[in-house]
Amino acid sequence: MCELQLLEERIRRDGKIGEGDVLKVDSFLNHRIDVRFLCELGQEFHRLFADCDVNKILTIEASGIGIACLTAQFFNCPVVFAKKTKTNNIYSDVYTSKVHSYTHQRDYDIVVSKEFLQPEDRVLIIDDFLAKGSAIMALADLIEHAGAHVVGAGIVIEKSYQPGAELVRSRGIRLESLARIRSMSVEHGIEFL
Amino acid sequence: MCELQLLEERIRRDGKIGEGDVLKVDSFLNHRIDVRFLCELGQEFHRLFADCDVNKILTIEASGIGIACLTAQFFNCPVVFAKKTKTNNIYSDVYTSKVHSYTHQRDYDIVVSKEFLQPEDRVLIIDDFLAKGSAIMALADLIEHAGAHVVGAGIVIEKSYQPGAELVRSRGIRLESLARIRSMSVEHGIEFL
Repeated sequence: MCELQLLEERIRRDGKIGEGDVLKVDSFLNHRIDVRFLCELGQEFHRLFADCDVNKILTIEASGIGIACLTAQFFNCPVVFAKKTKTNNIYSDVYTSKVHSYTHQRDYDIVVSKEFLQPEDRVLIIDDFLAKGSAIMALADLIEHAGAHVVGAGIVIEKSYQPGAELVRSRGIRLESLARIRSMSVEHGIEFL
Repeated sequence: MCELQLLEERIRRDGKIGEGDVLKVDSFLNHRIDVRFLCELGQEFHRLFADCDVNKILTIEASGIGIACLTAQFFNCPVVFAKKTKTNNIYSDVYTSKVHSYTHQRDYDIVVSKEFLQPEDRVLIIDDFLAKGSAIMALADLIEHAGAHVVGAGIVIEKSYQPGAELVRSRGIRLESLARIRSMSVEHGIEFL
């Protein structure tokens, strides 16, 4: 069985569907990190983007950091993680963008120090989830503020029934999601595309 | 040059000393993650704790996650990261402990789902910094609440002039810090033990 089938099986088996379109995959991705399994997913991201001259991976704290670091090994490149901040201070030494959290019903800023994103960078965005796309769009903003190139976005779990995937693609960003959920409900469970 | 000398050199070269005893090592550990270098540090943690039957690594979000995941590969074990929470809700399905942040001058709770810490676990704590020891002591609390065994604590940078290291050792926890700072000031720079 290939990694992608294993991933779907894992989501089906361990994923917990909660109120408000929440899918908890705490047992391997978001709280407990199954390092060996995520390495295999990282290798898959590398296979997909191997010929893209990626020299940096960008993610967002906290749950993106594990998969980003384990993936970065195969690209032999560093990871930069955007930090969440509630302050509205605009510092001159950071790139800033706004994310809307639908889970917490509020906006927050994400920041990256300017010294860690350079115009010559070819950046792969890695994150655990893609739903409405707010976080990925904000990460792409940061990369564009720096004048760097967005190589693409590698996502572990995409909720394909939400508008995020279309939003990312319509911006011209190559999107590769390892598991794509067509529908999800407590009654009928999870269906994949 | 061995990894530990390289680490001291890296801290000396890239570390930025700020107000309030702050040491920023954003260029390789806390914001930009030098994945290749952190893998070497992870290998060193494995060398130190290789014969301890570690089956789980515990860290705390966000800046501990990278080094914990890269280290866990050598132990072939999963990572669990404690989540920070400002709520005072006590859920029945999590272990909770209190951390005092001296940087932000406030207390916060950290939580771990009970299902991810088991009595039979032999847990290695991994974190980026040790200063006053509040976070490491709180992580040790979580492990003990679960009835599991604290194998030890592996720290990248210890501020040895702060009370944390002594606090951790006096609790009977084996402590291995890869770089130990004897003193630090803007005027005189960083001196290692």
